Amino acid sequence: MEISSLGKFGLIEHLTESLKTANSSTIQGIGDDAAVLEYHKTEALLSSRLLMEGIHFDLTYVALKFLGYKAASICFSDIYAMNAFPKQLTVSVGVSKRFSVENLDELFMGIEYACERHEVDIVGIHITSSLTGLCISAACVGEAGKEKIIYRKGAKKTDLICVSGDLGAAYMGLQLLEREKAVYQGEKDFTPDFAGKEYLLERQLRPEARKDIIELLAQNQIIPTSMISISDGLASELLHICKQSEVGCLIYEERIPIDYQTAIMAEQFNLNLTTVALNGGDDYELLFTVPLGLHEKIQALNGIQTIGHICDADEGAHLIARDGTYVPLAAQGWTTTDEDEMNR
Amino acid sequence: MEISSLGKFGLIEHLTESLKTANSSTIQGIGDDAAVLEYHKTEALLSSRLLMEGIHFDLTYVALKFLGYKAASICFSDIYAMNAFPKQLTVSVGVSKRFSVENLDELFMGIEYACERHEVDIVGIHITSSLTGLCISAACVGEAGKEKIIYRKGAKKTDLICVSGDLGAAYMGLQLLEREKAVYQGEKDFTPDFAGKEYLLERQLRPEARKDIIELLAQNQIIPTSMISISDGLASELLHICKQSEVGCLIYEERIPIDYQTAIMAEQFNLNLTTVALNGGDDYELLFTVPLGLHEKIQALNGIQTIGHICDADEGAHLIARDGTYVPLAAQGWTTTDEDEMNR
Repeated sequence: MEISSLGKFGLIEHLTESLKTANSSTIQGIGDDAAVLEYHKTEALLSSRLLMEGIHFDLTYVALKFLGYKAASICFSDIYAMNAFPKQLTVSVGVSKRFSVENLDELFMGIEYACERHEVDIVGIHITSSLTGLCISAACVGEAGKEKIIYRKGAKKTDLICVSGDLGAAYMGLQLLEREKAVYQGEKDFTPDFAGKEYLLERQLRPEARKDIIELLAQNQIIPTSMISISDGLASELLHICKQSEVGCLIYEERIPIDYQTAIMAEQFNLNLTTVALNGGDDYELLFTVPLGLHEKIQALNGIQTIGHICDADEGAHLIARDGTYVPLAAQGWTTTDEDEMNR
Repeated sequence: MEISSLGKFGLIEHLTESLKTANSSTIQGIGDDAAVLEYHKTEALLSSRLLMEGIHFDLTYVALKFLGYKAASICFSDIYAMNAFPKQLTVSVGVSKRFSVENLDELFMGIEYACERHEVDIVGIHITSSLTGLCISAACVGEAGKEKIIYRKGAKKTDLICVSGDLGAAYMGLQLLEREKAVYQGEKDFTPDFAGKEYLLERQLRPEARKDIIELLAQNQIIPTSMISISDGLASELLHICKQSEVGCLIYEERIPIDYQTAIMAEQFNLNLTTVALNGGDDYELLFTVPLGLHEKIQALNGIQTIGHICDADEGAHLIARDGTYVPLAAQGWTTTDEDEMNR
């Protein structure tokens, strides 16, 4: 069905008719000039993201449902990284003429599914034309008690550096998709064999925001001193924490959590596995620091790995390689003039 | 200066170094995964907008400074239309390679100028690559006491329908710019003569969000029963109010406020002046209803025009033309399959 057959307002009605609100903080959702939210006892947190076709996603191999899910998830991840919970989402989409109502339905199915799983209300939808590619913009409001909020700036000397899940898988998933795209370019029946590599694809195509980790830490009375979402890559995010906390850090190459599928694919692609894990990006895992005294408590938790510790700022930020050498951490995005630098 | 020479994080630092926060509700601005806002005694309002190059603006005649100002202003306008005040803004920009640091400086100069004038804090900036055109996404958080918020749904039978400023000027400004662009296409020294038409250009290029009207109404203890920002056009917005308030309306052609420059240009372009005022769009004036008893009070105010009244839903929504005929109001965006329909 063509979008024009519904009209601008008919389209919004069509996309919103099944939406319900789940949160008491949502006073007014879609249907007015602005949404109205009530945060009288807690703080409101605001995150936003912009995803551009050809930069953040490639529609030749990304299903719209997954793309919607991912767009919402990465917004949620920024809220979880403050030790807060996402509550409201507003989404703006720029679409070209080739988009049908069914395409938009699929995109919003993914967004709504992510919102359901994370109990988030969609409080605004804007659809506009785009002369060229698809463009998705999302802003998320989250909630947390003032004393619960965790910033990037709270890391202290001797704190342990922890990371959830494993790293580099999303990046290897992307490499895999790009390779298959190149191989099958032009062939109509595009059915590459991804058997045994499902995990990598899932990490790239449908990342999960780590609500479970936030809940796990709370259940175990572990209060991180600093926290950040890993979107650009471990090295880059760790340098953010160091800069804002005015500290240095030391992490151990051998402790960086890496899935075996990631390792196998890095080998196949002749890529340095540690570089992939440090700079791959798109992981959306949580990187955080906890006081040294919580060492045993944090080690007992599944899905969290201690990878090093915080030191004085003048000691710098280093990776201790397997052979014992100190390698200065560098965020790809900081100094390179590589055009990929701007892409995340 | 090329953007890559600063790097992703250097660029954000460059753009944010001069920013200060003005509002006590801004607990944490730029520099973490999300902004932290405090709305303990008031409600938080959330609006968002997405502007795409070639759809919402044409960089051949729109200066980046004005574009930044406009992007912020239309977000603020949505907040004012709830009888609330904008407080925080987050901006995401997708830029192509041809963009320089100076270009971004200019764009943000406009955004910052609008924020200063409206006492709004910029609490988030994201810059990303775009394969094609410029794309600006903004989300604004505003503030109002719960009992102060005015929705679209509150209009009652016999209420007066009022509009601020004048209508159609922004649309005529756009026609003027498009005509000059077509005439001067290819010529290097593009200096068209816009003397005497400055008002139309200003309405199109640098619209003002009507904070002054919100303040004026408050000073005069006038509480509208419903309100909406005129972005798509008077007819379309009035139908939104009617639909959500479950009422009808009657407006008088002769009472629609139109600037003389708008009238002259419509004549030159051989356009129906009332159609321009009803459907032109991009006005960002406020449309609102007040109880009939406030008739004298509202008439005494400068810059506000009473254009008709609310009636029963079954009487429909009509314009009474100068010759006394009843013309059903239709929003261009509702039924047309014209491709322009999606463009605002």
